[in-house]
Amino acid sequence: MERAAVRIEGRVRRTPVLAADEGVWFKLEQLQHTGSFKARGAFNRILAAGAQTGVVTASGGNAGLAVAYAAREFGLPARVFVPATAPAVKVAKLRQLGAAVELAGEKYADAYDAAVKHAADSGELFCHAYDQPDICAGQGTLGLELLDQAGGLDTILVAVGGGGLLAGVAAGVEGRARVIGVEPRTIPTLHSALAAGEPVAVGVSGVAADSLGASRLGDIAFAVATRTDAGSVLVDDAAIIEARAVLWDRYRLAVEPGGATAFAALLSGAYRPDPGERVAVLLCGANTDPATLTSPTAAPPPERTPRGTHR
Amino acid sequence: MERAAVRIEGRVRRTPVLAADEGVWFKLEQLQHTGSFKARGAFNRILAAGAQTGVVTASGGNAGLAVAYAAREFGLPARVFVPATAPAVKVAKLRQLGAAVELAGEKYADAYDAAVKHAADSGELFCHAYDQPDICAGQGTLGLELLDQAGGLDTILVAVGGGGLLAGVAAGVEGRARVIGVEPRTIPTLHSALAAGEPVAVGVSGVAADSLGASRLGDIAFAVATRTDAGSVLVDDAAIIEARAVLWDRYRLAVEPGGATAFAALLSGAYRPDPGERVAVLLCGANTDPATLTSPTAAPPPERTPRGTHR
Repeated sequence: MERAAVRIEGRVRRTPVLAADEGVWFKLEQLQHTGSFKARGAFNRILAAGAQTGVVTASGGNAGLAVAYAAREFGLPARVFVPATAPAVKVAKLRQLGAAVELAGEKYADAYDAAVKHAADSGELFCHAYDQPDICAGQGTLGLELLDQAGGLDTILVAVGGGGLLAGVAAGVEGRARVIGVEPRTIPTLHSALAAGEPVAVGVSGVAADSLGASRLGDIAFAVATRTDAGSVLVDDAAIIEARAVLWDRYRLAVEPGGATAFAALLSGAYRPDPGERVAVLLCGANTDPATLTSPTAAPPPERTPRGTHR
Repeated sequence: MERAAVRIEGRVRRTPVLAADEGVWFKLEQLQHTGSFKARGAFNRILAAGAQTGVVTASGGNAGLAVAYAAREFGLPARVFVPATAPAVKVAKLRQLGAAVELAGEKYADAYDAAVKHAADSGELFCHAYDQPDICAGQGTLGLELLDQAGGLDTILVAVGGGGLLAGVAAGVEGRARVIGVEPRTIPTLHSALAAGEPVAVGVSGVAADSLGASRLGDIAFAVATRTDAGSVLVDDAAIIEARAVLWDRYRLAVEPGGATAFAALLSGAYRPDPGERVAVLLCGANTDPATLTSPTAAPPPERTPRGTHR
């Protein structure tokens, strides 16, 4: 993990931390290059592999943007496989970053298979969206950075999709802070894996599906979560929508639903810190239409005094 | 200034700093309570005066929100005078914060006169939007905090309306960093005052008029600007619109046009740092409709590599 941090230093932003409330810190990782933590893993994967030819991934979302961006920084061609159902706006953004976009099949699994095959045939570097050691290690640099910035924490709340961020952060802070995985009740990859004793397929739906919509927890994430005794908390879509609205209304932070999911656990009470517990919340993505921050479906509540801020 | 910092500690957020680029820092003051730096001055004014009855201000914008918020924190009634032309959405927000809103006349000057008269008649505490020593000192705590966080700076770019922020910051960092006042070409209060040798009335128009729309520089700001040899830079509305779009597109920072004005000087080249110069940009307000971040009039340019970020 420390090697990953050295490797990607200067390539990624050291995103700031906001002391949001008594005992609560926000890590503002949505301010990272391409708007999510995924840039960390992408840079680490490409640098660790010493990629010389090109890079390949399958993603219609944040992982694709990050790989396209990182590849461009090295002058390497990037090829991103997406299902034909990928939103045109995301495809356009990938192309804006210089990536070749390949439409493959109707489902994410089709795009994934095509990307793996292309990498095998071409010798180009395959970047998994979450389940590769160098990807996880890159994401984990976020945890090291956060501990350094906040100066000691008990708990870190992390949103979970495929679990690459959870895996990296939990491994990075092992023995120094406990990680709690937070996921939408509609996409319970971690929760179901812990219950079943292994990663299992889950349904994918709800407001955060665009960024947390993996159908199965990664094997690395499962291994790290069980080894480090990571916690698991589920939140409703309504709590995610409210958390996103409060982050805008009270803090002027714009995040996507997946980026607000960890905060939803705290705001809704799904996760209740003990008195004196020092809790950090990873705000991890902001690839979102800002117009929806104040839409009727995400109307901010009246401004309230944050718990305990005023000492 | 140090006394002001001690006075308001714990009442305002210590807003984070983002190392945005080689030699460039962003102070994320738009994340302050009520979405702008004005909370600092409001708390300092109320605390310094030991207000016991109520507070009064004239403002349809960020100053009014900040005074209403600070008063509520102390359980004091707030009365905010606004011209009848104030947008209903701002009036609603003031009322949401518990303020009594008084419509007075058609112009800001009418509301100002009514607020001053009310304060004199009632004995309640008048909070000026920018031209009072304790207001300026409160805003200046931002400069002290920034120097502490960035660890040494040459230059601080500050948006100017009435000049309360400029006055406080320039006085606070005097001898340690130089302040450059940036203002829209359509509201040149500082530029005109420096040219005339005294504050003079200017026209008020353009995209940033809602937050920078003072018609005359404050006397305190003029005195501090001349004493500290503050610089003055003008930017076009188009540069402000582009800066705001780039802050969203490249950094996922949502600010209002006035909050993007200081950055516009850097982005447009209206202010060109010397090689090695360490420059901080105050992003100072985010009371904005986020839907306009990606509107056709503020379309983000294609993502580009920030100058010098990649070492």
